[in-house]
Amino acid sequence: MHRPVITLTTDFGLTDAYVGAMKGVLLGICPGAVLVDLSHEIPPQDVRGAAFVVAAAAPYFPEGTVHLVVVDPGVGSTRRAVAVLTQRSLFVAPDNGVLSLALLQEPVVQTAELANPRYRLPEVSATFHGRDLFAPAAAHLACGTPLQELGPPITDLVTLPWPPPELQADGSLIACVLHVDRFGNLILNVQPGHVEGWPRDQIEFEIAGRQVVGVSRTYADVPSGVPVAYLGSSGYLELGVRDGNAAARWGVGASALVWVGRRAA
Amino acid sequence: MHRPVITLTTDFGLTDAYVGAMKGVLLGICPGAVLVDLSHEIPPQDVRGAAFVVAAAAPYFPEGTVHLVVVDPGVGSTRRAVAVLTQRSLFVAPDNGVLSLALLQEPVVQTAELANPRYRLPEVSATFHGRDLFAPAAAHLACGTPLQELGPPITDLVTLPWPPPELQADGSLIACVLHVDRFGNLILNVQPGHVEGWPRDQIEFEIAGRQVVGVSRTYADVPSGVPVAYLGSSGYLELGVRDGNAAARWGVGASALVWVGRRAA
Amino acid sequence: MHRPVITLTTDFGLTDAYVGAMKGVLLGICPGAVLVDLSHEIPPQDVRGAAFVVAAAAPYFPEGTVHLVVVDPGVGSTRRAVAVLTQRSLFVAPDNGVLSLALLQEPVVQTAELANPRYRLPEVSATFHGRDLFAPAAAHLACGTPLQELGPPITDLVTLPWPPPELQADGSLIACVLHVDRFGNLILNVQPGHVEGWPRDQIEFEIAGRQVVGVSRTYADVPSGVPVAYLGSSGYLELGVRDGNAAARWGVGASALVWVGRRAA
Repeated sequence: MHRPVITLTTDFGLTDAYVGAMKGVLLGICPGAVLVDLSHEIPPQDVRGAAFVVAAAAPYFPEGTVHLVVVDPGVGSTRRAVAVLTQRSLFVAPDNGVLSLALLQEPVVQTAELANPRYRLPEVSATFHGRDLFAPAAAHLACGTPLQELGPPITDLVTLPWPPPELQADGSLIACVLHVDRFGNLILNVQPGHVEGWPRDQIEFEIAGRQVVGVSRTYADVPSGVPVAYLGSSGYLELGVRDGNAAARWGVGASALVWVGRRAA
Repeated sequence: MHRPVITLTTDFGLTDAYVGAMKGVLLGICPGAVLVDLSHEIPPQDVRGAAFVVAAAAPYFPEGTVHLVVVDPGVGSTRRAVAVLTQRSLFVAPDNGVLSLALLQEPVVQTAELANPRYRLPEVSATFHGRDLFAPAAAHLACGTPLQELGPPITDLVTLPWPPPELQADGSLIACVLHVDRFGNLILNVQPGHVEGWPRDQIEFEIAGRQVVGVSRTYADVPSGVPVAYLGSSGYLELGVRDGNAAARWGVGASALVWVGRRAA
Repeated sequence: MHRPVITLTTDFGLTDAYVGAMKGVLLGICPGAVLVDLSHEIPPQDVRGAAFVVAAAAPYFPEGTVHLVVVDPGVGSTRRAVAVLTQRSLFVAPDNGVLSLALLQEPVVQTAELANPRYRLPEVSATFHGRDLFAPAAAHLACGTPLQELGPPITDLVTLPWPPPELQADGSLIACVLHVDRFGNLILNVQPGHVEGWPRDQIEFEIAGRQVVGVSRTYADVPSGVPVAYLGSSGYLELGVRDGNAAARWGVGASALVWVGRRAA
């Protein structure tokens, strides 16, 4: 039996019936599907936060997984609804840039605007396209409907700029916090390529008046309570505090600026 | 392979092992079942809140789905435990009215009091009937045990009154907030039939000293930060604030009164 | 089709992509697995809290279930990673004592240190062994890889002492709160054997200056708002307040001391 995987990422939270109704629709159309929640605790209407979560998890799912993403401040407006086939996955989402980061990782093969009314619920509400439009499309794709059946291709997907660190005249970088995780770790927009050739023990970070020097391998390389920089599991450099919460201690959140330089040897 | 769907709605939260233990029992008895959480974040002992969640999600699940609902302030008392077969679903719950709203939508075909000890765990605790009594019943039903095996029929299911809006002498309505969702939207006890024939742009709402005039199609019909009334995805009129949180801004919650009138043209 | 069950218990929370990435890995290796969340809301690095949740739920899962537990303050250090086969289950976790309580319930049959690189992801990050090391091991075990393939046996698993109540000279007990659940109920480290032969109506509890006398069968035996002691569903005595929150009302939490004595008849 074919057991396609469908992941769900929304800002609907877990107290209401919204996610449940979407899953009912998914299972009604594609009964064999395996449903996996990525997160429903995306802050309301935080398109960038959802983009980060989807991009971080997608590479670890089997080929052919359908990623359904509904963070949709423009529901009911003229924003388009899209499906995207990449070399290893399928994505279904509003066309508001929420797929930007995932699609940097997986080249796009084919796109479709969700225009075919056959792949929607019979009645589409004005406020809950997750249930009435996106879930049916995801379920039909998971169960084998070819992408082009859903609608015409799109050539101008909305893309959110993903800020790279800014190179200064002196060779240092002005970076920023992309995401704060549950542990208060600060995930920076700095990848290893941005500091290529810099000796690990000379890389210096400054954030909110606090300095961290050197990139460790893991938290356990420093004593409890001590700040630490390390290459995080999503492929970005991170700042944290061993056994502590860096975001809370330093009073910083997403978008905070971080200076990254190279300490003279 | 038969993959029956069982949904779960409780006030157990997600920090303890309660929901996990119930799922273990469900899979032990009916290994092919697909388990779907509606919500476990129902406020403790909020029977009406659970009733709303179940009623909002149930219509979107496949026929034959078993909805297991455990919000049970009377656990261990003499309140009855019931299973209900409707034209399209099965429900298992304490007989405290938590199914009232769902059963307004789906006519009852058959009922059973969960009296047969064969469809319980060997030991039934006094405080956790979700695991010891309700989950086994739901799993047996999902895997094909006929309803009448579980116990004798009941003719007097507990029904919570679901407050309709109150019609005033001048033709206006005194309505109330049924539910506040994660986004702070206020779901009212007003369905389209209650305002039939009223021109959409003349319907007027007053809540906590604030007026909203006209029923829009969706949030996107008003600018960011502006209050808006619209027909919500559960079939009730709702009040919200585009890109904002109406409940927090206006300081109102479930049960708040709302006056609904018709503005002179 | 074989549908092995894998449960997940972590302190990763539900806002980030961590749990989702683990599930992607699990389904990639063992596509038929049924994934069940026990809790991802374990307080960060609370090894004892996770131990309690796993022990409370594990007995209710089918034989052969794999319990994957990742609360791992020592990730990246030299702490070992282990798999444990018991008479009815399999466990995969860091060797930090998080399995202590579950293994009191299910005798250990066989152990393995997760040393074989064949059962990991090709690249193992220094900070996310849940995804790169523990999830692959759990998935391989669930899909039938014999335990000894994963690595050599361990004879000195880390065991956290589980505090028994302390017997006083006068026959009373100094006990403590093991866990506070969502409802504010206080789960004590007192099992029925500790008060064997004490008449139920003479058992007396004192916590934070408050007395509770007698062990009831269930909440419903006392009026709303009244404190109550009862035998909880995990097999420990508990203190609660009917329709209320004992932890909040009395200002106590995990580890709080409780005096348990026998009132003169």
